[in-house]
Amino acid sequence: MAKFLTNKDENYAQWYNDLVIKADLAENSAVRGCMVIKPYGYAIWEKIQAELDRLFKATGHVNAYFPLFIPKSFFSREASHVEGFAKECAVVTHYRLKNDEKGKGVIVDPAAKLEEELIIRPTSETIIWNSYKNWIHSYRDLPILINQWANVVRWEMHTRLFLRTAEFLWQEGHTAHATSREAVEEAEKMINVYAGFAENSMALPVIKGHKTEHERFAGALDTYCIEALMQDGKALQAGTSHFLGQNFAKAFDVQFTDKTSKLDYVWATSWGVSTRLMGALIMAHADNNGLVLPPKLAPIQVVIVPIYKNEEQLSSISVAANNIKEGLEALGLSVKYDNRDNYKPGYKFADYELKGVPIRLAIGPRDLENKTVEIARRDTLTKETIPIDAINNHVVELMKEIQNNIYNKALNFRKENTFYVDKWEDFVTLLDNPGGFIMAHWDGTTETEEKIKEETKATIRCIPFDSTEEEGKCIYTGKPSKRRVLFARSY
Amino acid sequence: MAKFLTNKDENYAQWYNDLVIKADLAENSAVRGCMVIKPYGYAIWEKIQAELDRLFKATGHVNAYFPLFIPKSFFSREASHVEGFAKECAVVTHYRLKNDEKGKGVIVDPAAKLEEELIIRPTSETIIWNSYKNWIHSYRDLPILINQWANVVRWEMHTRLFLRTAEFLWQEGHTAHATSREAVEEAEKMINVYAGFAENSMALPVIKGHKTEHERFAGALDTYCIEALMQDGKALQAGTSHFLGQNFAKAFDVQFTDKTSKLDYVWATSWGVSTRLMGALIMAHADNNGLVLPPKLAPIQVVIVPIYKNEEQLSSISVAANNIKEGLEALGLSVKYDNRDNYKPGYKFADYELKGVPIRLAIGPRDLENKTVEIARRDTLTKETIPIDAINNHVVELMKEIQNNIYNKALNFRKENTFYVDKWEDFVTLLDNPGGFIMAHWDGTTETEEKIKEETKATIRCIPFDSTEEEGKCIYTGKPSKRRVLFARSY
Repeated sequence: MAKFLTNKDENYAQWYNDLVIKADLAENSAVRGCMVIKPYGYAIWEKIQAELDRLFKATGHVNAYFPLFIPKSFFSREASHVEGFAKECAVVTHYRLKNDEKGKGVIVDPAAKLEEELIIRPTSETIIWNSYKNWIHSYRDLPILINQWANVVRWEMHTRLFLRTAEFLWQEGHTAHATSREAVEEAEKMINVYAGFAENSMALPVIKGHKTEHERFAGALDTYCIEALMQDGKALQAGTSHFLGQNFAKAFDVQFTDKTSKLDYVWATSWGVSTRLMGALIMAHADNNGLVLPPKLAPIQVVIVPIYKNEEQLSSISVAANNIKEGLEALGLSVKYDNRDNYKPGYKFADYELKGVPIRLAIGPRDLENKTVEIARRDTLTKETIPIDAINNHVVELMKEIQNNIYNKALNFRKENTFYVDKWEDFVTLLDNPGGFIMAHWDGTTETEEKIKEETKATIRCIPFDSTEEEGKCIYTGKPSKRRVLFARSY
Repeated sequence: MAKFLTNKDENYAQWYNDLVIKADLAENSAVRGCMVIKPYGYAIWEKIQAELDRLFKATGHVNAYFPLFIPKSFFSREASHVEGFAKECAVVTHYRLKNDEKGKGVIVDPAAKLEEELIIRPTSETIIWNSYKNWIHSYRDLPILINQWANVVRWEMHTRLFLRTAEFLWQEGHTAHATSREAVEEAEKMINVYAGFAENSMALPVIKGHKTEHERFAGALDTYCIEALMQDGKALQAGTSHFLGQNFAKAFDVQFTDKTSKLDYVWATSWGVSTRLMGALIMAHADNNGLVLPPKLAPIQVVIVPIYKNEEQLSSISVAANNIKEGLEALGLSVKYDNRDNYKPGYKFADYELKGVPIRLAIGPRDLENKTVEIARRDTLTKETIPIDAINNHVVELMKEIQNNIYNKALNFRKENTFYVDKWEDFVTLLDNPGGFIMAHWDGTTETEEKIKEETKATIRCIPFDSTEEEGKCIYTGKPSKRRVLFARSY
């Protein structure tokens, strides 16, 4: 298995692509830029979905579903939104095919042209606020706290599985509030929900912060984000939450009467994470043997492999293995007993390493005799032999330990690759080698931000919430600055 | 609330539409034929999804995700499939918008025309079998048992919320097998899964059967379906499962080597149910007061309404209500305590009747004194007073009783409205009044089937699995027939 992976240190991009394919997570489809998410990859996504959905509901949100199509004119209503979103998109112009009169398959029926073209949603603010207009009249109708799980399409020219695809799956929260303060609190709450999910479930340490004006969501007054560091020293934006002010309410004329009977526009937020998280999960933890999945998101948490020479041995091992399986399943763990006869243990070991299964148990005839089992952990690739009696507690504890260890490993990597830089030469050198997060001063202008990007390909990932005030000079212009911001090259 | 509903017996279609809107299930959007599924409607759909997903996984299936777009040429590959599906569909022809040079919003960029148009999937056989081609080489790669939860688009001209919309949500299973027999067994298994779900969860009795050749899925060798009777005497197809033979394998050249090293085409099935089930759920059980939800699919299973005159009363009632709520939630029930101060109990009662909440508890000061609670059931609209101490057991039992009662009511309705008819005049008369299921003989020809449809708008819903062999004469032509088939007008 793993021998088919490109070495991570030699060609990171190729290693990533190999891994996505070989671990059966996803593949490219016949349609340019659109991926097929294969069952193993989708099973991880389902775990991500389930936990996020639980967190959304625990914070008072409900799900709904809005149309895939957005009338073209809707995009023109919010000036900056159209700039950001209505360009590279899939446009539906016709609603019928017909048989080709020349007998060659089907052609688009020119008579079935739409009066107004429909855009496949790249994000749903416009169609949703057009609906909210009819739902909101008084402060009693507020807040609206809705989330949608959906597919969206952005016509990307350079695509990479999970990281950048024309169609992707995501969730998008769209909330409506009576006051600016409440909307800001909601946007902050959701970036904290995302950060908590990334850290607790994905074992992915993240930096929370504001986007600069230049990097904001098209139509937002403020964008919060979480930024994670990948093993190649590049940043990956793992989630965003936007305070939209009254922009969409004004664009779609959504007003309400407040408690004093005064008419005002409604305040909005939106927030989303996507199948991009799959890319983050892979790139933050995987190694040259394959995926390393955090136990909380692993579709198979424990795999049991029998080691045997004949049917008789297999049959007594199977009794023990099924006992262990039942015991662990009763604790809520997902366990697979792989008794396939047409693959050797060595192949199976490599396969489950490739797939990132956190814990592997192996049972051979000697184990049966000694009432032991060999337990191997994916994160450290270490093995030990333990009494069968102790298996339940041992696995439960090990699951926690692996989850923590993966997180700490990623956190240490980030610490070792976060640099506080004050000289432009250092900034440039560090970006090339080893890469990483660079905390540096910036003069606050879009002009400087763009020049730095032009010269180094690094962008301001965020202005971290916890960036402390200090006197400094812009890394590029030398102009005064009050706090450091986070620079990196990014996905 | 309910007073705003049109009377069901006066105008069934209008009653249905009123109910979907007033109960906050769904509404029409700004995009022709596309609906917005509102949070309460979506919560019911989530319950349907969760249970179906559990049943699919329990029968060995896994989920995956395939592209929204299908290249136009794919539809031409399977001859009958293109006839059935590639006509009324949404066609993507361009991938970019640009600013109008005349300054009026955005226009489609003529330079960004796709080489080959993309169709928004109306169903995914073609794109999926194009992927399976790369996944299947040997019998060892089979079976593939995949399901997909997705949105699909069929450009319907006459749309009705949930029943027929341009975009709808559904699941589509697509399986691949080494033998014809295994594929047939799979198709049968899944129609049984659907029937079990309809009867156990939706409290909806269904007739399982084969579609006639004329009514088969485009590209199938056999289509199984479940048919349910709505309260207006019309049938609703609630799910289909198709044995596709080797048609799609041949169209996409998917071959495998069997155990004897012989090359053969792969055998296929597909099966699906959609948000149409929401329409069935409403039309089978609801009444002039609103929805009647089966307890197993009700987002709110029990609602508690306090009856009070002052804050002091409310506060002591709230203590009791929250105790009851906690006790019932510990049993896994979903309970809402509605202590909103700006609505009167009468309004709340009517609102929860409209929304179909199965059980309503009311607690007033006298109840507190007597340690009792008033319990009302939605299905019969009856009330009784019971000791607070007995509430847990009582509610649990009542949930089962309501689920059974709703089912039995629908079953009795179907029995009373199923007619064994041998004369054409009776056939025609009964169809108009009262409608219902008509079991009649048919000569087995498409010609007769079409003529009956032309003259009466009735179609053969299915050839029931349990239709016993008997000698008879076709209701229309008088030609010999071996068994009765199920006729009805339908949605």
